[in-house]
Amino acid sequence: MIYITRREHFNAAHKLYNPNWSEKQNNEVFGKCANPNWHGHNYNLYVTVKGKVNPNTGFSVNLKELSLIIRTHITDKLDHKNLNLDVDFLKGLMPSTENVAIAIWNELKPHIEGLDCHLHCIKLCETENNYVEYFGEE
Amino acid sequence: MIYITRREHFNAAHKLYNPNWSEKQNNEVFGKCANPNWHGHNYNLYVTVKGKVNPNTGFSVNLKELSLIIRTHITDKLDHKNLNLDVDFLKGLMPSTENVAIAIWNELKPHIEGLDCHLHCIKLCETENNYVEYFGEE
Amino acid sequence: MIYITRREHFNAAHKLYNPNWSEKQNNEVFGKCANPNWHGHNYNLYVTVKGKVNPNTGFSVNLKELSLIIRTHITDKLDHKNLNLDVDFLKGLMPSTENVAIAIWNELKPHIEGLDCHLHCIKLCETENNYVEYFGEE
Amino acid sequence: MIYITRREHFNAAHKLYNPNWSEKQNNEVFGKCANPNWHGHNYNLYVTVKGKVNPNTGFSVNLKELSLIIRTHITDKLDHKNLNLDVDFLKGLMPSTENVAIAIWNELKPHIEGLDCHLHCIKLCETENNYVEYFGEE
Amino acid sequence: MIYITRREHFNAAHKLYNPNWSEKQNNEVFGKCANPNWHGHNYNLYVTVKGKVNPNTGFSVNLKELSLIIRTHITDKLDHKNLNLDVDFLKGLMPSTENVAIAIWNELKPHIEGLDCHLHCIKLCETENNYVEYFGEE
Amino acid sequence: MIYITRREHFNAAHKLYNPNWSEKQNNEVFGKCANPNWHGHNYNLYVTVKGKVNPNTGFSVNLKELSLIIRTHITDKLDHKNLNLDVDFLKGLMPSTENVAIAIWNELKPHIEGLDCHLHCIKLCETENNYVEYFGEE
Repeated sequence: MIYITRREHFNAAHKLYNPNWSEKQNNEVFGKCANPNWHGHNYNLYVTVKGKVNPNTGFSVNLKELSLIIRTHITDKLDHKNLNLDVDFLKGLMPSTENVAIAIWNELKPHIEGLDCHLHCIKLCETENNYVEYFGEE
Repeated sequence: MIYITRREHFNAAHKLYNPNWSEKQNNEVFGKCANPNWHGHNYNLYVTVKGKVNPNTGFSVNLKELSLIIRTHITDKLDHKNLNLDVDFLKGLMPSTENVAIAIWNELKPHIEGLDCHLHCIKLCETENNYVEYFGEE
Repeated sequence: MIYITRREHFNAAHKLYNPNWSEKQNNEVFGKCANPNWHGHNYNLYVTVKGKVNPNTGFSVNLKELSLIIRTHITDKLDHKNLNLDVDFLKGLMPSTENVAIAIWNELKPHIEGLDCHLHCIKLCETENNYVEYFGEE
Repeated sequence: MIYITRREHFNAAHKLYNPNWSEKQNNEVFGKCANPNWHGHNYNLYVTVKGKVNPNTGFSVNLKELSLIIRTHITDKLDHKNLNLDVDFLKGLMPSTENVAIAIWNELKPHIEGLDCHLHCIKLCETENNYVEYFGEE
Repeated sequence: MIYITRREHFNAAHKLYNPNWSEKQNNEVFGKCANPNWHGHNYNLYVTVKGKVNPNTGFSVNLKELSLIIRTHITDKLDHKNLNLDVDFLKGLMPSTENVAIAIWNELKPHIEGLDCHLHCIKLCETENNYVEYFGEE
Repeated sequence: MIYITRREHFNAAHKLYNPNWSEKQNNEVFGKCANPNWHGHNYNLYVTVKGKVNPNTGFSVNLKELSLIIRTHITDKLDHKNLNLDVDFLKGLMPSTENVAIAIWNELKPHIEGLDCHLHCIKLCETENNYVEYFGEE
């Protein structure tokens, strides 16, 4: 049983703003992240899957296939986009790093199962100082 | 004569879009950077100044002062902002990495001269694959 | 349940030296780390906490608050300090990376509990080749 | 109980090619990795061991000793070598990142046990986008 | 006048070996780099061009075009290849970092001139500890 | 004519303190860098030399020799040392990054000349945010 990780990346705009709150409350909680005109990040996404090694290939998963799945279903939809406005699978979500990571997990999971391995972790890095990890735990 | 560099950073949204062009022409030239709903980056800014070493301090410039000048005049105005909409010294400019770097040079230069050293280079990194350097050359 | 990590850093001096041992024994075990005049490092500290996502904010923890807690209780006390001499919560400890990481865990834990999440891991990197991780395990 | 990690590195050539398959099948599965004239990588190897802190040293393991063991038994045998042809403990193995990581675990494990701590993880990074982790799980 | 840099990368095998020398002489000069079965690296290639900013685009060069030129003429020919055997524009050359960088300059220069800017520097990084820069100087 | 760079590193303690000044003046100028009990850094040193390519080797300089010279004359004397107290060629100098870089240039220059190439630049990085470059200019 081995864990293999592929990094992909995307550059996106977002803001953190709760429409049910006053501007003052938004500023207290979200600070400069609440700027109405948006800001953005270079996101690094690490997808870890877990599986057994196939003796014919030495692979637990073919990274060309894993990369293609991540790009098709996730990063092509996020790259150079607005996370609040442009992404079908983020509609109605506050695009915090936590929520984006969980949404990526949910979106990616069915496609990984087809690869004869299991999705283990979504690690999403917003800056070099901040990142989240989600393992599918309730 | 020695060169000293301070890194600061900012996270911002922007788009590349020429309002005098058709949408088709914008897409041909700017591709996904023309997304009307914006995208964004974690920018790294490296400011290099050139000067003589002061024998009392061993410093060509006090980096605490240089950092404060860069933050006050540049990165506090750019961080968590929209480069097309929110920044006084970028008004009317296409916020390409080139134009932002040159505008930072012009904005910063008078404040550096007060430090008894010379502004040598603005290096602005948009992603780990793309960066520009400006030395004040016509 | 999601894990979120904040990086902070500090620059400090230390030495590894057991006063109950001969100089020869110290040199055999600690090598150049036993230099009586000290040496130092740029330390990177990664604090990981574990919690549920608040639907109003999208946050498991507000990183502005987490960062402030780490700086107030940990890195402001370690930065530009001597780990053998200057730090209240390291008094009497050999300042190995292991011991500093465990001491940071013990110091930080009560302050994290107030955030409605749990301290999961202290990762302390001494160089790009050496780091430790502590999860509070006995 | 604490986890400590040492990074070592090696530069090596390899190819991925199954001699029981046609050239067409090799190209479909392995793509450009099947180039008969080889290609190569700068590999980063992270070895994590788990142990208790010795109160006399503050160490769970002496990293000088751990580094020497890794270099003697692993990286001196892999560095500037061909992973398909030159390495005794890889003979007969497809040198995928997965298989090399597992072989390093098997080779290293008996030498770590002598250190009064336990081998916890072999993390092997082939590029900045691809890495595997092995924890000795069946 | 501004300088803009694009990073591309390739993974390749090579060896350093002078066929006019004895094996002993090759080992003395090239050490483990002379391993007859090859070794390899993850190379990072930074291409810097110099030009004026076009007021309609804000670009000195369109990085999509620059990237395509570098990939078409250089990295697609080097990636997952053997630098001694597989590359037309390296035939007959000792594939040291110096010689590869100069050959890349010569190969790339005519294609850059078509972009209305000038090739300024080829920086080729063989490892995180070793790199060369070539500016076209005799 | 090509430029080649070798990175070496060292970990050291230092403080910035002018003994001719009051404690108040030291604190105003040097801030926390004046801590009497020292602090420290992981320094990265990049040495760039300039030369012609030897057609028999493909090298402008043999990096094994360059690395040995840097380690013998510079980093073995700085690593795990106190820059104010322990280093012959820094005696009497304020160990600012500027002064240490210039002293390394002066110390290294005669040894580089023996290599049939020229010392071009000493780049010394104190943190990931601060570095100096010295080209031997008066």
